[in-house]
Amino acid sequence: MDVVILGSGNVATHLGKALSHAGYNIVQVWSRNEVHAKELACRLGADHTNDLRQLNPTAHLYFVSVVDDVILTVLSQLKAGNRYRDDAMFIHTSGSTAIDVFNGLFNTYGVFYPLQTFSKVKEVDFKSIPVLIEASDFTALGIIRKLAYAISDRVEVVTSAQRKSLHIAAVFACNYTNYLYIIAQQLLEQNALDFDLIKPLIKETADKIQLHDPSEVQTGPAIRKDMAILEDHMKFLKANKEWQDIYKLLSDRLVALSTKK
Amino acid sequence: MDVVILGSGNVATHLGKALSHAGYNIVQVWSRNEVHAKELACRLGADHTNDLRQLNPTAHLYFVSVVDDVILTVLSQLKAGNRYRDDAMFIHTSGSTAIDVFNGLFNTYGVFYPLQTFSKVKEVDFKSIPVLIEASDFTALGIIRKLAYAISDRVEVVTSAQRKSLHIAAVFACNYTNYLYIIAQQLLEQNALDFDLIKPLIKETADKIQLHDPSEVQTGPAIRKDMAILEDHMKFLKANKEWQDIYKLLSDRLVALSTKK
Repeated sequence: MDVVILGSGNVATHLGKALSHAGYNIVQVWSRNEVHAKELACRLGADHTNDLRQLNPTAHLYFVSVVDDVILTVLSQLKAGNRYRDDAMFIHTSGSTAIDVFNGLFNTYGVFYPLQTFSKVKEVDFKSIPVLIEASDFTALGIIRKLAYAISDRVEVVTSAQRKSLHIAAVFACNYTNYLYIIAQQLLEQNALDFDLIKPLIKETADKIQLHDPSEVQTGPAIRKDMAILEDHMKFLKANKEWQDIYKLLSDRLVALSTKK
Repeated sequence: MDVVILGSGNVATHLGKALSHAGYNIVQVWSRNEVHAKELACRLGADHTNDLRQLNPTAHLYFVSVVDDVILTVLSQLKAGNRYRDDAMFIHTSGSTAIDVFNGLFNTYGVFYPLQTFSKVKEVDFKSIPVLIEASDFTALGIIRKLAYAISDRVEVVTSAQRKSLHIAAVFACNYTNYLYIIAQQLLEQNALDFDLIKPLIKETADKIQLHDPSEVQTGPAIRKDMAILEDHMKFLKANKEWQDIYKLLSDRLVALSTKK
């Protein structure tokens, strides 16, 4: 199957590589940024373009892996260009854009959402990444499921609303978690301490919930309702109003949670 | 060396076991709760008591591993009881209580703070846990350092202020992170999705910062300033004001962070 990748960000990059390894033939990479298009195309042994009118018209699959607010524009331009096979399939990779973004544009389409955090600095093993899929019809679902299983061991069919809830859960559990790591790092640096000191703790915290329910393993002064410590920490953070606000909001919630139990 | 453990919580339990494995002789466990005292004492092959006046008077080390707001009370009662060797050493294991809690009470004392999250449901390998120590004098520091190296590969001498900053960093990177996992789990459950789906993401997020700077690997809609998605997520969360507040505060900070870059 010939595949065109539209996009050159983290998801496009990791997905392109995984598809290529799985034997799919990546024929072209499109990106608004020509340098990025070329770079990724080069790694995938594909052509590249930054002009949507120059897309390969004989590909079987078009993966649209661009930021959410550009998906509709890209799809509309593809449709307007009208240079694709009748049986071509269009797929986006977003967590938060509903499948109905394709409505009225194409006949055969789907969503392929890999639930993972990708960054260019680190390789990931796609096999362990859950892929959430959705499609316009059963035939399309069959194609996208086969594709998903070619690169991942965990594939689930979900609705657009479920997918959005997964994306939001991922924002909490990954994006915001990483932001808390940033705060921890900066706090340690300000106190002449090495971020390395806290890495085993971060690892253990994530390892623990692989086998245990997170609400069973919650620890710390807030869940113990140790108000003196919470107050003392707030005082320590007084030079940084932003950290204080976050500390307060989260500790309040945990104290409330411990009271509910 | 004969050791008395005061406390029967998560830290007391894991520490008692590690010290015992390292060849220290745990002679007694004290806890206000006699059942807990007995349970831990039993596992350590030690005596137990719930009466501070019945503490073993010939021990060399007294580990005070109780919640912060009780440390001073326990120490004062120990002092008042006056049943301990002249050269006995007193150690607390708190992240946030300064070493001066011992001032005017004892001559030889120190702090032994293992930077890890302990829960009774999961074993931990103490070897990889950083232990932050502090002591009343060089002789005491020597004793406590030897003790720390007997059970851990990473020992650092830090001041009380540094230790507190580490504790606060740990609250952000561990306690609050785990709370975000709880939110993610509940959000998924509400949408009939399995928490397992997000576990690889949680693991990868923690793994990534073992080798990379967290601010280099921050991902998600907020750091991309994808305002449409942020707004859409806020709308999705409208039934839960608490989650909305947390989402908003953290996304605002990340948007500000991305602007600063």
